[in-house]
Amino acid sequence: MRLLGQSPENFDPARAWVDLGQETLSETRLFRHLLLRRRSPHGPREHGFTRLACPEWVNVIAFRAPELGGELLAVEQFRHGTDRATLEIVGGVCDPGEAPEASARRELREETGHGAARWIALGSCAPNPAVQDNRCHFFLALDCRPEGPLELDPSEEIRVWGVPWTEWKARMADGRVDHALVLAAFTRLFLWEGWPDFARSLGD
Amino acid sequence: MRLLGQSPENFDPARAWVDLGQETLSETRLFRHLLLRRRSPHGPREHGFTRLACPEWVNVIAFRAPELGGELLAVEQFRHGTDRATLEIVGGVCDPGEAPEASARRELREETGHGAARWIALGSCAPNPAVQDNRCHFFLALDCRPEGPLELDPSEEIRVWGVPWTEWKARMADGRVDHALVLAAFTRLFLWEGWPDFARSLGD
Repeated sequence: MRLLGQSPENFDPARAWVDLGQETLSETRLFRHLLLRRRSPHGPREHGFTRLACPEWVNVIAFRAPELGGELLAVEQFRHGTDRATLEIVGGVCDPGEAPEASARRELREETGHGAARWIALGSCAPNPAVQDNRCHFFLALDCRPEGPLELDPSEEIRVWGVPWTEWKARMADGRVDHALVLAAFTRLFLWEGWPDFARSLGD
Repeated sequence: MRLLGQSPENFDPARAWVDLGQETLSETRLFRHLLLRRRSPHGPREHGFTRLACPEWVNVIAFRAPELGGELLAVEQFRHGTDRATLEIVGGVCDPGEAPEASARRELREETGHGAARWIALGSCAPNPAVQDNRCHFFLALDCRPEGPLELDPSEEIRVWGVPWTEWKARMADGRVDHALVLAAFTRLFLWEGWPDFARSLGD
């Protein structure tokens, strides 16, 4: 890649800003809201930056076993950020000390009642590197089969859907599926080395 | 799509939770951190939910004009959430009352010094519907050409890169590009009706 410009002239992105102090503004179950006071390594500029200190997250692209129909497993939930119900892939928050793949298995089991015969790690992303310090880990779960009832937290209310691949893809294309972390997981799936073969198995 | 299960038995995702009150826990330039107290429409359960009230955001997938090399325009910045530099597409926050496409044009101009001959709207996403109330609007900017110097906020330090498409795709595949909203924009691009033709023009 080719450098086309930069500002300031002495900017070196590898140099970290200098910490001058931080303050916790608020804290809930989901994150701590911090205000960082920092000085630029490239000049006298001082600024306040917002950070949300968050636990790790996981997302699971899960497909039912071919003999069960092979659909994508989706969950529908009422979401309190946007005040409406959304259709998403399985996802959740890692428990303290829990490895991401263990969280993924647990969330698939709790939110859909399914287990998977095969797990493939699809890497991870920074949900919002400007503000959040955590990562969201992506997994592909294949040959999923029912193992028992849903096991939800007291605040969770969920519908589980089996969605044919062509319908799911249409919903991502037209915005009916619009959760950024869900869409991000599919870019990783589409660029995964196994995708061309797997896409053929989905009839794509 | 096919309903596979739900909990509770009387769950109807179209029914909103009942507001019992809300409290502002903290507020910065980027968002207000709210705690919502709500009662389920399906039973006696009461819970507190976190919300971040945020302005609208935009993301721009921008390509330089073919005669300039046709590379993707990327910006490298030090990010204070993750404490490291990331390579991203152009993006930012809509000013109050500013239409998303106007924000996209402004951010492209300010962060890269470029203007685009053609703009295509790629829809929008919910950055995190569980918590945030805003949307991130995606645009494709084509035939970009330099129009002047970078115009950065006092806290912004940026390198602008021209990245060949095959290199950008490799960086998304292996995680060197890992911003969720950036990855989400490319799922919308890959599912856009114009993508097959456009991909061919990129040599894909």
